[in-house]
Amino acid sequence: MDQDINLDLQRAARLGFDEAIFCSGKTVEHIARILDQAHEKGLPLLLTRLHQTQFTELPEHQRSRIDYEPVSRTGFFGSPHASNGDARVAIVAAGTSDVPVSREAARTLRYYGAPNVEITDVGVAGLWRLLDRIEEIRRMSVVIAVAGMDAALPTVIGGLVPGVIIGVPTSVGYGVAAGGQSALNSMLSSCAPGLTVMNIDNGYGAACAALRVLRALS
Amino acid sequence: MDQDINLDLQRAARLGFDEAIFCSGKTVEHIARILDQAHEKGLPLLLTRLHQTQFTELPEHQRSRIDYEPVSRTGFFGSPHASNGDARVAIVAAGTSDVPVSREAARTLRYYGAPNVEITDVGVAGLWRLLDRIEEIRRMSVVIAVAGMDAALPTVIGGLVPGVIIGVPTSVGYGVAAGGQSALNSMLSSCAPGLTVMNIDNGYGAACAALRVLRALS
Amino acid sequence: MDQDINLDLQRAARLGFDEAIFCSGKTVEHIARILDQAHEKGLPLLLTRLHQTQFTELPEHQRSRIDYEPVSRTGFFGSPHASNGDARVAIVAAGTSDVPVSREAARTLRYYGAPNVEITDVGVAGLWRLLDRIEEIRRMSVVIAVAGMDAALPTVIGGLVPGVIIGVPTSVGYGVAAGGQSALNSMLSSCAPGLTVMNIDNGYGAACAALRVLRALS
Amino acid sequence: MDQDINLDLQRAARLGFDEAIFCSGKTVEHIARILDQAHEKGLPLLLTRLHQTQFTELPEHQRSRIDYEPVSRTGFFGSPHASNGDARVAIVAAGTSDVPVSREAARTLRYYGAPNVEITDVGVAGLWRLLDRIEEIRRMSVVIAVAGMDAALPTVIGGLVPGVIIGVPTSVGYGVAAGGQSALNSMLSSCAPGLTVMNIDNGYGAACAALRVLRALS
Amino acid sequence: MDQDINLDLQRAARLGFDEAIFCSGKTVEHIARILDQAHEKGLPLLLTRLHQTQFTELPEHQRSRIDYEPVSRTGFFGSPHASNGDARVAIVAAGTSDVPVSREAARTLRYYGAPNVEITDVGVAGLWRLLDRIEEIRRMSVVIAVAGMDAALPTVIGGLVPGVIIGVPTSVGYGVAAGGQSALNSMLSSCAPGLTVMNIDNGYGAACAALRVLRALS
Amino acid sequence: MDQDINLDLQRAARLGFDEAIFCSGKTVEHIARILDQAHEKGLPLLLTRLHQTQFTELPEHQRSRIDYEPVSRTGFFGSPHASNGDARVAIVAAGTSDVPVSREAARTLRYYGAPNVEITDVGVAGLWRLLDRIEEIRRMSVVIAVAGMDAALPTVIGGLVPGVIIGVPTSVGYGVAAGGQSALNSMLSSCAPGLTVMNIDNGYGAACAALRVLRALS
Amino acid sequence: MDQDINLDLQRAARLGFDEAIFCSGKTVEHIARILDQAHEKGLPLLLTRLHQTQFTELPEHQRSRIDYEPVSRTGFFGSPHASNGDARVAIVAAGTSDVPVSREAARTLRYYGAPNVEITDVGVAGLWRLLDRIEEIRRMSVVIAVAGMDAALPTVIGGLVPGVIIGVPTSVGYGVAAGGQSALNSMLSSCAPGLTVMNIDNGYGAACAALRVLRALS
Amino acid sequence: MDQDINLDLQRAARLGFDEAIFCSGKTVEHIARILDQAHEKGLPLLLTRLHQTQFTELPEHQRSRIDYEPVSRTGFFGSPHASNGDARVAIVAAGTSDVPVSREAARTLRYYGAPNVEITDVGVAGLWRLLDRIEEIRRMSVVIAVAGMDAALPTVIGGLVPGVIIGVPTSVGYGVAAGGQSALNSMLSSCAPGLTVMNIDNGYGAACAALRVLRALS
Repeated sequence: MDQDINLDLQRAARLGFDEAIFCSGKTVEHIARILDQAHEKGLPLLLTRLHQTQFTELPEHQRSRIDYEPVSRTGFFGSPHASNGDARVAIVAAGTSDVPVSREAARTLRYYGAPNVEITDVGVAGLWRLLDRIEEIRRMSVVIAVAGMDAALPTVIGGLVPGVIIGVPTSVGYGVAAGGQSALNSMLSSCAPGLTVMNIDNGYGAACAALRVLRALS
Repeated sequence: MDQDINLDLQRAARLGFDEAIFCSGKTVEHIARILDQAHEKGLPLLLTRLHQTQFTELPEHQRSRIDYEPVSRTGFFGSPHASNGDARVAIVAAGTSDVPVSREAARTLRYYGAPNVEITDVGVAGLWRLLDRIEEIRRMSVVIAVAGMDAALPTVIGGLVPGVIIGVPTSVGYGVAAGGQSALNSMLSSCAPGLTVMNIDNGYGAACAALRVLRALS
Repeated sequence: MDQDINLDLQRAARLGFDEAIFCSGKTVEHIARILDQAHEKGLPLLLTRLHQTQFTELPEHQRSRIDYEPVSRTGFFGSPHASNGDARVAIVAAGTSDVPVSREAARTLRYYGAPNVEITDVGVAGLWRLLDRIEEIRRMSVVIAVAGMDAALPTVIGGLVPGVIIGVPTSVGYGVAAGGQSALNSMLSSCAPGLTVMNIDNGYGAACAALRVLRALS
Repeated sequence: MDQDINLDLQRAARLGFDEAIFCSGKTVEHIARILDQAHEKGLPLLLTRLHQTQFTELPEHQRSRIDYEPVSRTGFFGSPHASNGDARVAIVAAGTSDVPVSREAARTLRYYGAPNVEITDVGVAGLWRLLDRIEEIRRMSVVIAVAGMDAALPTVIGGLVPGVIIGVPTSVGYGVAAGGQSALNSMLSSCAPGLTVMNIDNGYGAACAALRVLRALS
Repeated sequence: MDQDINLDLQRAARLGFDEAIFCSGKTVEHIARILDQAHEKGLPLLLTRLHQTQFTELPEHQRSRIDYEPVSRTGFFGSPHASNGDARVAIVAAGTSDVPVSREAARTLRYYGAPNVEITDVGVAGLWRLLDRIEEIRRMSVVIAVAGMDAALPTVIGGLVPGVIIGVPTSVGYGVAAGGQSALNSMLSSCAPGLTVMNIDNGYGAACAALRVLRALS
Repeated sequence: MDQDINLDLQRAARLGFDEAIFCSGKTVEHIARILDQAHEKGLPLLLTRLHQTQFTELPEHQRSRIDYEPVSRTGFFGSPHASNGDARVAIVAAGTSDVPVSREAARTLRYYGAPNVEITDVGVAGLWRLLDRIEEIRRMSVVIAVAGMDAALPTVIGGLVPGVIIGVPTSVGYGVAAGGQSALNSMLSSCAPGLTVMNIDNGYGAACAALRVLRALS
Repeated sequence: MDQDINLDLQRAARLGFDEAIFCSGKTVEHIARILDQAHEKGLPLLLTRLHQTQFTELPEHQRSRIDYEPVSRTGFFGSPHASNGDARVAIVAAGTSDVPVSREAARTLRYYGAPNVEITDVGVAGLWRLLDRIEEIRRMSVVIAVAGMDAALPTVIGGLVPGVIIGVPTSVGYGVAAGGQSALNSMLSSCAPGLTVMNIDNGYGAACAALRVLRALS
Repeated sequence: MDQDINLDLQRAARLGFDEAIFCSGKTVEHIARILDQAHEKGLPLLLTRLHQTQFTELPEHQRSRIDYEPVSRTGFFGSPHASNGDARVAIVAAGTSDVPVSREAARTLRYYGAPNVEITDVGVAGLWRLLDRIEEIRRMSVVIAVAGMDAALPTVIGGLVPGVIIGVPTSVGYGVAAGGQSALNSMLSSCAPGLTVMNIDNGYGAACAALRVLRALS
């Protein structure tokens, strides 16, 4: 199976993004071989959707090289990028169930050296919790708004904040909310002008989108 | 075709709702025959989804007996019920495109003698417009919240108002919002506790639901 | 993860609903921390979708403070509200498979001190079972009608009962019924005037909707 | 285009069904050519979904050979089969909007000489209208139950009547009912044992299914 | 939970169908209590979707009263009805993966004393296997055609056989076939006149529909 | 708008396909400008989905350069390629309503000089019509099988014919067949090994796929 | 109906976006009244989805104040904002059928004084057309990538360009592409890191998103 | 259950394909009986979707007769066909997660003696990896392009390669990509002319389609 692994060495040069390994659905053996190849080539890697059980089953010498965070299921293999100034990104999550996704965004930004602020449990069914934090949010260049269910949070933020807004629907919920399609459609049809949207649960992608903005700024 | 018409004379006694005729898709001849039967039996009727062109093509002697309102496409055939005290229902619409549906609810309530207040263009992408009216809305026993697109309005109201909330999704919008399924799912998966939902564009049904509440109150 | 928990202390004051914790998908550790926070602040909590295995794994000192009911998967943490007069809500379930949902509604009402009557296994494919109980149902202010599959029950009730009707579709069934979307659409397109609808399996929400009506009454 | 017409002469012998021409979407010229071919070969034809405007534009000599009925949009070209004893099929429609479909079934049965009874406007939201007719329906060998929206009618009939039940969902309605998929799924997931189902609006097919039963009986 | 069980004693009298217990999703305790109630009242029961593991966990005294068949996951509790003459029903399955469903139909018919013939692995991608058996199939009053994937089998049979045809789509397959919706839609839109359709995997229902036909015949 | 037209001059060299213009949804002015550009550059064009009314409104000097066929809505602008040997492609359509799609495939092949045979009205509900022609079909290298509704035709052909089979679902039909998704899914989940599938109504694409095969052969 | 219009005067101050009027589905009378109100208050407006026929039916004195562009169906009422430096946004469209959407984005940017470059007909099925322009695209801060059908364009751009990428799916196409859902899902599941997505056909929203980025830059 | 197995002995003669056994969902006992029957009759078999655990649980004497490959989950029972000349098929996979499907195609081709080249991890988000291999791909008669997510790979190949292209969407991905429907629709609506498509994850079918082409060539 080794010939099936083909790390993209040019990606960092071309786009400024290191290789990221989406671990869900990969066998532990497959992940271990990727890590070996990366280690040989001196490549750092961002590991996403690395489940606790996958991490635990990796060989000890590999585990010790990974900075693992279980809620977001992310791992940093090798050194992450140096941190870079003040926080310019707010990551706002509607409920505690959305934290695996918002934390994935936060960790991805941290890997790339982009400081950020996480604000949790400010869903609009309890509006005042959001309004209490809105001035802090307004000061950021980019807001990543993470929500499942009716996903009303990004619309309300999009009407109050002039910065770049990146909505991430989550698969949290049951009935018509199950899987996140309702939240996705809600964000796509938002009345707030200029709200952009990511795939369901794609906290990693939202962070990459934020990084594209931050680079344009610098 | 006359044998195909079978007006339900017991409905008013059984449920307290007069017969309502859903005119969309019916021929003008069919509607005219229903009106003739109702006139003979002395039955008042509420006509819904009666398009302007259908109304115009009805015979003059029938048109003159109908109180027609074109935005909501409703007609009162015969005398509506007497009005009954102060407004206990607020009908709140997110945008001007939702008015055909919110007006249908308002007209249905008026037909049954239930005073109500209409509040329009208070979508949550411009949150302050809603907050300016929220105290007025909180004083009502029932709130009918009409919205298309992301349909975030009922969730925000449901978190601020303790009364009965009836959400009506509308088919306003394009792309994933077209047809109203996104708005419907958004309302059904709302985080606000106890929000009830109607079929897409069903302003008439929302008013009937409000009337069921008002009767329980009296 | 403690900073991810942000109990909404103002909700009871604002809406009259205590905080409810949706436990499905949460880890036992997460639930335990929420209970600790609530205990410190003297907050009662309603726990929903608390699976038997989650309950069993909670620390003994927390388990002993919870009144747990396994069919509905609900727990009362702290004292529920005092019961309040005669039953004004009927909870009607089409089949025994719908009982987890109807019982969730019943338990939520009981938590908030609202007496109610449960009537089970009266699906309309065996119509006389329903007709035998219909007078009892007609005496209630609110009817919560719980049904999966073709979900014809709320329509038949809605044509016989003048009170407030809240339909709850369930995910019971297989083939096109699987997941509950058929039952949901059936209720939303009901011919009975003024039938309101909740998300699939949302017994908790139906009870909250009933409570909004009962408060308007009092 | 004449080579594109290939009338199936063996079908009547093989299955006992004459050729039926589904006219929707065909040009008037195309229909006219089919009629010419059938006339030359002495074949009778059943025309379905023949819209009034298509019928009117046919040449006079062809129109005069067609027994046309506009509500069902059916035409008999040539002599229909001789009528055959007492009615053994009841065709029951929930509302007047379902009549185009129920009448198509009635006309197809009449074309094949099968007497039948049509019962209209007995939707279960007004249950007593159905119960008034139920003994008459129980005496039939086959019941075709036609309904849109929540399509609860066939379930209720299926629980009261021991004969063969053929459900036909209709595309009547708006919102989630639009197009008939809700009604279809409702019938397919019916709790009544042994309810069979046809495609949306397929009154013709329901009649053919009834004819297959009647032949097995004879 | 005992009050949640409400066996329908009138069903056999009203419709000629004994109570059938759909066991999927029920706990073993729940099933055991139903069996106890039925035993006390001397009611025979047909058990469907009774998984091997559920059967094995039932108390020995109940297991011994059940005639269990694992492929169809059906059990006869008490004596089935006496067999009744020659086979008048053919049950035709496209592939071996469809056998759990076709066998459920066969077992249900056997429970009600209706002899039948099972023909398996005659999918139309190997057409000659079907044509070899077609004369045998043509002699039956009723054909139950069970198929997943493209579900072309009932259409081909419907064009060759004049009797009653009941199509049962199965959830066999992957990709767009997964879950059976493709097979269902294929059957509903069949070009063969008078093909009736059941819910996905509903072998029990197909047998009930066949029984309704057989009774009309007798 | 002229800068919006950017004819792909390299396509013929790169792939062997001339530019094809999909005319549906384009204004007549837009089409006329494309034809002018092509005429100036001496490029031949294949026009697809050119509706009769669009064709009629083109300027006379352009109409005269187009070989137009109304059933398939195709036009040849400039000289088509020279015809090339015996027919190696059969285009088989289930019903006359599928002819616009099958003819589009036939015309596209003719434009590129590939002789072919059209066989119409051989749907498998009347199986013998297909079996009468099957030897002729077996002699071809490629079979394009066009069908709507249950789309069983390609499966039956795929089990009888060893050559390349390209299925084209059509949007013919109503109810669950409307739009062609049922036919598409039916073909994709076919039990016949190696059946390839095109988008709904894509007769042009099927012909291109056949041409790719024919070139590999030559 | 005048009370139904409620222009949001604070929006420009709060978010930096003038009021935009979505004209599709509004009557000409309704649009005219909005223009009158805006004129009285001295508000400039951006009109989107203003169909040619709507524009033509407006009163002459209003038409003369509107800079109308028919392909994008946009109008500037009052003076647009002053242009602001060099182009920092590229708007890239896959085909000529996507131009109504890409032009809407271009016009919205122009209204707000943001210079931009339009590049059309560079779909990846003719890859070299895109590669010829890629260096020009790479120099921009923001790329709006507009595509229907398989919508592969934004993925290819996202892998070659480090700037901000905003994908806009279009409703161009037929069969599974009809309505744009395929293109939308294709963009949402793109393998290119950090691609953000808008609702189908939402060129206006893409421009607003680009403006949020440009402001963060300035 | 033995009577449920009906191996199609004529298939190889009729179509040139040996029997293939789809093992997913079959019990190990069922598979073992099929192998016994095949062994008795001297039939070779291709086993697909044979999971590692199924393989391991087969009796040793059967395991020893199977050439098993775990990534593709395929087994050769009996001798595969002799290899036949140079590779004329390229199997191109977008990512390593697509390898189970591309390998299934490769193994099926190998079983039938058709040499082929596998090229992996050339998704178009890293375009240069594909362009590096494009000349090699262009030399093949048939290209099987395997991709999930946005599935842009076959479109790009289809615009660069004149040979036969067979797209296989995979179920790789999450959110809107989950299950493979997005990838499928993307391929079906491809702008590249003549791209043919298989069911999701159907590597076996793609190989069969390629074999049909190769035979036409020989």
